[in-house]
Amino acid sequence: MKIVVVGGTGTIGKAVVKELVKRHQVIAAGFNDGDIQVDITDKKSIENLYKSINNLDAVVATTGTVHFGKLEEMTENEYYIGLKNKLMGQINLVLIGLKHLNSRGSFTLTSGILNHDPIIQGSSAAMVNGALDGFVKSAALEMPKNMRINIVSPNVVLEAMGTYAPYFRGFNPVPVDIVALAYSKSVEGAQTGQVYKVGYV
Amino acid sequence: MKIVVVGGTGTIGKAVVKELVKRHQVIAAGFNDGDIQVDITDKKSIENLYKSINNLDAVVATTGTVHFGKLEEMTENEYYIGLKNKLMGQINLVLIGLKHLNSRGSFTLTSGILNHDPIIQGSSAAMVNGALDGFVKSAALEMPKNMRINIVSPNVVLEAMGTYAPYFRGFNPVPVDIVALAYSKSVEGAQTGQVYKVGYV
Repeated sequence: MKIVVVGGTGTIGKAVVKELVKRHQVIAAGFNDGDIQVDITDKKSIENLYKSINNLDAVVATTGTVHFGKLEEMTENEYYIGLKNKLMGQINLVLIGLKHLNSRGSFTLTSGILNHDPIIQGSSAAMVNGALDGFVKSAALEMPKNMRINIVSPNVVLEAMGTYAPYFRGFNPVPVDIVALAYSKSVEGAQTGQVYKVGYV
Repeated sequence: MKIVVVGGTGTIGKAVVKELVKRHQVIAAGFNDGDIQVDITDKKSIENLYKSINNLDAVVATTGTVHFGKLEEMTENEYYIGLKNKLMGQINLVLIGLKHLNSRGSFTLTSGILNHDPIIQGSSAAMVNGALDGFVKSAALEMPKNMRINIVSPNVVLEAMGTYAPYFRGFNPVPVDIVALAYSKSVEGAQTGQVYKVGYV
């Protein structure tokens, strides 16, 4: 298969690339780095990504920004950071990708644990993760050309605990190579409409 | 208690007003009708709502628009209809309301079943409902002044089946007076951070 990993230069993305490249042709897309560059907040940039890769079988998205902040201090614009980037960035990868992927192609998105197991300052992350999980379960009903769509919802990743630890006290972090397996199951398996919860207690 | 029901002139809202008015002072807010008017997509309109009601104990939101459409035909702007209206409209009722409600006040929002039990053309509704459920679970951790927040996620409502029936074949619709009880539990009880699933099979 030919697979693009959008966010393939990040913590999770690198592990996904490492897992999939054993058996497939993998293109790592980054914002500034990687094999190819894409800005997921820009539909033209997404179009250009797909136009520059022919015969594509799978899209993995391991990218997206949200704003963390105290509820009473959060502004509407700060919620829109996550809605425009992590949420609609990934959704636009799907909507535009539907026109470019091969039949039986797959999309694998990324949410996270915070809509199930919330933390202080995480209301925007919880919102965006819940939105993505809901979208994927519904969109799976309407995928054309036998395409599939799943989402990986990892616990906090062990390799990110250096900076995240103070916000995730008591969480049992999951090693990123374990998280990468869920993307492999989504891309190389046959399931659709699944929310793969990885490393949940 | 003094309670405002935003969307209090709609199908669910009227039933909520009917249930709560037995024991409380209830103000029905509508877009064009009701005791007072508010546009939840306009922060100034929300500010005006709160400024015109002093000594408020509870906000119930039973309102919000999303666009229904086939996945392959949905545009980014059509997803933003739901994000700006049903999602951020209800979130802004909370964010602005935090500054105006009495201590121990409560917010009760409305999502719906479609992120759990999806239908064709419902990907935007599933997205928005998931976002709202996630936000409420997380925001409950950070409510000031002993305030509370919950959300009601009803199955399709019996009284709406005239127009919705073709989209909800096989769903077991729930009478709106049963749905109204969940709002009463949220407003008059002590729980917080709950997603009240009403009428789920």
